[in-house]
Amino acid sequence: MEQALKPADRLLHALADNRIAIEAVTPEIDGGRFPAKAAVGEVVVVEADIFSDGHDLIDAALLTRRKGDKAWSETPMRLYENDRWRASFVPVENTTYEYTVIAWRDLFRSWRSDVSKKKNAGQDVTSELKEGLHILKKALSESDRLDPERRARLQRVTEDIARLADPAQQFSVLMGEDLLGLMTAGGPRSNLSYYLRLLDLFVDRKRAAFSSWYELMPRSQSGDPARHGTFDDVIAQLPYVRDLGFDVLYFPPIHPIGKTNRKGRNNSLTARADDPGSPYAIGSEEGGHKAIHPELGTFEDFHRLVKAAAEHGLEIALDFAIQCSPDHPWIKEHPEWFDWRPDGTIRFAENPPKKYEDIVNVHFYRDAIPGLWHELRDTVLFWVEHGVKIFRVDNPHTKPLPFWEWMIAEVRRRHPDTIFLAEAFTRPKMMKRLAKVGFTQSYSYFTWRNNKAELTEYLTELTTEECRHFMRVNFFTNTPDINPFYLQNSGRAGFQVRLFLAATLATNYGIYSGYELCEAAAMPGKEEYLDSEKYEIRAWDWDRPGHIKDDVRRLNAWRRAHPALQQFTNLKFYNAYNDNILYYGKYTDDLSDFLLFAVNLDPLNAQGAQFEVPLWEFGLPDDAPIMAEDLVVDRRFTWQGKMQRVWLNPSERTYAAWRLISPQERLT
Amino acid sequence: MEQALKPADRLLHALADNRIAIEAVTPEIDGGRFPAKAAVGEVVVVEADIFSDGHDLIDAALLTRRKGDKAWSETPMRLYENDRWRASFVPVENTTYEYTVIAWRDLFRSWRSDVSKKKNAGQDVTSELKEGLHILKKALSESDRLDPERRARLQRVTEDIARLADPAQQFSVLMGEDLLGLMTAGGPRSNLSYYLRLLDLFVDRKRAAFSSWYELMPRSQSGDPARHGTFDDVIAQLPYVRDLGFDVLYFPPIHPIGKTNRKGRNNSLTARADDPGSPYAIGSEEGGHKAIHPELGTFEDFHRLVKAAAEHGLEIALDFAIQCSPDHPWIKEHPEWFDWRPDGTIRFAENPPKKYEDIVNVHFYRDAIPGLWHELRDTVLFWVEHGVKIFRVDNPHTKPLPFWEWMIAEVRRRHPDTIFLAEAFTRPKMMKRLAKVGFTQSYSYFTWRNNKAELTEYLTELTTEECRHFMRVNFFTNTPDINPFYLQNSGRAGFQVRLFLAATLATNYGIYSGYELCEAAAMPGKEEYLDSEKYEIRAWDWDRPGHIKDDVRRLNAWRRAHPALQQFTNLKFYNAYNDNILYYGKYTDDLSDFLLFAVNLDPLNAQGAQFEVPLWEFGLPDDAPIMAEDLVVDRRFTWQGKMQRVWLNPSERTYAAWRLISPQERLT
Repeated sequence: MEQALKPADRLLHALADNRIAIEAVTPEIDGGRFPAKAAVGEVVVVEADIFSDGHDLIDAALLTRRKGDKAWSETPMRLYENDRWRASFVPVENTTYEYTVIAWRDLFRSWRSDVSKKKNAGQDVTSELKEGLHILKKALSESDRLDPERRARLQRVTEDIARLADPAQQFSVLMGEDLLGLMTAGGPRSNLSYYLRLLDLFVDRKRAAFSSWYELMPRSQSGDPARHGTFDDVIAQLPYVRDLGFDVLYFPPIHPIGKTNRKGRNNSLTARADDPGSPYAIGSEEGGHKAIHPELGTFEDFHRLVKAAAEHGLEIALDFAIQCSPDHPWIKEHPEWFDWRPDGTIRFAENPPKKYEDIVNVHFYRDAIPGLWHELRDTVLFWVEHGVKIFRVDNPHTKPLPFWEWMIAEVRRRHPDTIFLAEAFTRPKMMKRLAKVGFTQSYSYFTWRNNKAELTEYLTELTTEECRHFMRVNFFTNTPDINPFYLQNSGRAGFQVRLFLAATLATNYGIYSGYELCEAAAMPGKEEYLDSEKYEIRAWDWDRPGHIKDDVRRLNAWRRAHPALQQFTNLKFYNAYNDNILYYGKYTDDLSDFLLFAVNLDPLNAQGAQFEVPLWEFGLPDDAPIMAEDLVVDRRFTWQGKMQRVWLNPSERTYAAWRLISPQERLT
Repeated sequence: MEQALKPADRLLHALADNRIAIEAVTPEIDGGRFPAKAAVGEVVVVEADIFSDGHDLIDAALLTRRKGDKAWSETPMRLYENDRWRASFVPVENTTYEYTVIAWRDLFRSWRSDVSKKKNAGQDVTSELKEGLHILKKALSESDRLDPERRARLQRVTEDIARLADPAQQFSVLMGEDLLGLMTAGGPRSNLSYYLRLLDLFVDRKRAAFSSWYELMPRSQSGDPARHGTFDDVIAQLPYVRDLGFDVLYFPPIHPIGKTNRKGRNNSLTARADDPGSPYAIGSEEGGHKAIHPELGTFEDFHRLVKAAAEHGLEIALDFAIQCSPDHPWIKEHPEWFDWRPDGTIRFAENPPKKYEDIVNVHFYRDAIPGLWHELRDTVLFWVEHGVKIFRVDNPHTKPLPFWEWMIAEVRRRHPDTIFLAEAFTRPKMMKRLAKVGFTQSYSYFTWRNNKAELTEYLTELTTEECRHFMRVNFFTNTPDINPFYLQNSGRAGFQVRLFLAATLATNYGIYSGYELCEAAAMPGKEEYLDSEKYEIRAWDWDRPGHIKDDVRRLNAWRRAHPALQQFTNLKFYNAYNDNILYYGKYTDDLSDFLLFAVNLDPLNAQGAQFEVPLWEFGLPDDAPIMAEDLVVDRRFTWQGKMQRVWLNPSERTYAAWRLISPQERLT
């Protein structure tokens, strides 16, 4: 029949397909231009508006598969409001998946619903029974979805009905639940319609979505400011980091450091002979991005460190910073990768009128394609071969977006478990675009969101707006570049507050070494550290008084123990009637892990508040009792009713955390 | 050079293109799946998020052309907030346009900005001047955007600068506005990037976006309920309709009416011998959708009517209702277009348990493709050839969406000036989808939006949300099917209120004959007319006491005279401190036509309110005086300050309308 059609009629048949409208699919990033993201084991929810002409009942399904596979897995979608349908699935492999949506008219269910209405209205349905039988016969002859066992059952039922003389008996069999199940599972799909877009979902390994970072400067790990730290010194420090509960250990660049225009202490323009220079001035006659700074050790030492870290449950993350010192070997070997001025000099990095004399930037276009692009990709692959799968990328927003899209895809094609963290602090749309083109994690504005309104607004955006499908923030409390004003003026309590926020609001978070010691000494008037490790070797007393290592251990332990803290978009803000107290919950879908957090954002004064225990989430009335567990002191108690009070004193502890115990759990 | 590249490198070059991110283009309907809409002469605003890596300045342009043309027209885009750019253009032809966005790095402007910052910081810019000269030379050698005159000027300036010995003089020429203009107009576009999607814009003729409809039943125009009205009776009525100020005259179906199961008066199941039947029961032995009901007249009469209407400034709109009476010739000629039951009977239209015994629906699939689809398209084309370009489509949401998309495209390919009004009162997403697939105008929920909150919310959605790009509502106050409860209980004032709302809130609006007479007699408890013209011939006294023809004339005159009333999305709600008084403004971009409207939604009681005169829209302080014109009494006066009072008494007039006169206009 199809063969006999004229071309114009074939076109019309093709246009007539897809009778069911399928639109507004989520996630769908920029019309399918970019993949959405998920992690292995995460529940991925797909929604769509689905509707058709007329009154017939429709049904829909989500199709998913690993990209490259032939067979689709099918998950039924369910209508949940105003023509909006929803299904979820759990990807199990660290690779790219694809998904789309199908829908069809369900003739049998439509018939069943109509007949039932007519019967209830007292109308004669004799003719309708014949139609029902007709649909069953059609299913037997047309459907390719009936397995032999179901086909046999359907055949039997159909024959039984045909044999029955009594319309009432026919009606009763035709309306049976068993037959409905058979027809839903195997009946024909009338006007089967496709969304006509295959959408990509990049599924990362779990650490992409849940990680706790600790950043340190390897050269400061000798315990002696006069001696350059080595990889072996870092190995000695591993038990300390692991004891704090982290799982990613991240180093700023470990490559040879340039000497030309080397920066001195506190970012001064002239270095003394013994100043080590900034590790971000990468490259010297000793090598570039594929070399190790000799004072840190050898590749052998590095391999030993990677292995020892793994034995401590720690994964090493390296910095990928593309700029070069003026001594970088590339400059001589590949002058075509740089921007030369008409006067024959090379252009230093600058953001006029600011100048960065110790580094030059590569030029990504003109004759730098393909050489530079290949070299940069190969640099990342080089470190992957040396055991590193996590890269914190320096200032990606000052390098071309197409480069990142290409490079990350190239690396992940070979090593899908590679993680890239974008260190971009720039305008919102650029930060989101970097996440879209492939960055696994993203630094965020968290560092500058201090008060209740700011935090609520920002976290609501991150957890509910479209970016939740592709951007995973990593909340760093501080970095070698950012000594936040809030911490400079808050004392120990402020460090507890910001740690608590980062570790409970975000699934990915990090601290930069010294944070646990409440290090806050700043360059006056700037958000920069005094005597920064970026320009000199420091030694630290890891037990110095006033530290908050207990808090760090506690929060990391909670994060490991509680599934609710391993999801990002499950955040809900609740009412606490004091603008200094931020109060929120995170819980798993089944309510089995229901956590509540309260934190006093005012590091200087005790604050109290009435707050609402969200009894309604358990379907309980406002005056019900509920058992709770204080996570800090590991004690159970009962709250009677919705309104409760909390008092948070910075001189004691600035935060509280509870787990609500559902009445069901209590009974078991 | 390009030729010499290896395939892999060519791919990399291609990937490296489009360095500038261009995203979130509006309008863009469903990722470009559907066209946006505009009308000839309307300002079309296109926006996009545009940004790039690094600090260089970028620039962008909107490209537009008639689909099929080769050359693009280019309109500069302007940054207006947070990486969001905007441009507008005015399409001049009733056809499909396409548009996209390009962006590039502006090397010269970037250089100019950097040098200026360095100079201001007291830095030496000697080397930068050389770079500037270099950019000019590059422009001369590379740019294909310089016309001969500009090239000559640039050549002259470049040579002048090279000759100048004094860096200060060089600086001054290089920074000159004249050179900037030259380089902006003709300089090279570095990293020229494309959005990579061509988006469609269907440009309708003006009436698609601005029309005033009057609906009447031709058979009720004889003035005698015992005599079937004719097209000649309608011709006699044309001066009346034109005097009211309408420009579209719309008839329910004019085709032969079936006799089988014909409905009697007031929708009764049995018709008396002289009952004319519902015009929606289309088709008898006298013909179907391409025939005229003999009692109305002949094709010759119809042609005379179309011509006479045009002479009165009125355009005829016909109904396109696909259902058939059981007597329709198609049933015998094309049984494959209908749904036959196993018992050999044809299925009547039904929405169980409701039945519509006088009509049957066609079946659009199976063997009805292509025959039925072609016949329906050809039916529309048939009436187009008989002078009709506007079709009100009955219940499109019960026919397949792909059919509409195909049929409307087929008709508009031949006659782009055809207008289709979708008579769908159904769920929101279906109503929007019908607009997306091609309907020119759409009936709306206006008929059931009565109070201030409802009207504000609904109009805000329509004028600000995405649907504004593709859905043009037509606010009918009433239809033969809808005698709204509000009007049944409101008296004459209610008719004024709803007329005023429809005519000032929407650019497309309509009334069904009798509205101007305040006809409200209803079937008890239903939103249906008593003794409906759908089932019997009526005669009307067009001057019967209590009519509101003066209001109709006035509102239609305002609509013709005021450009602000010919735009839809320029609506703004302002504050009037009484929930019974809806108060809003509409104005042209240049403020030359600034209208304010206040209406008392309570038809039974006088209401007063303080309201805010939007002085701020003119940049005036809250206590400034402003001259205004009362549109009803055509009188000028001065308001002193922002807060004013209005009093609207249903027994006098329920509405007020003013034009604010900008201080500029007053001076001229």
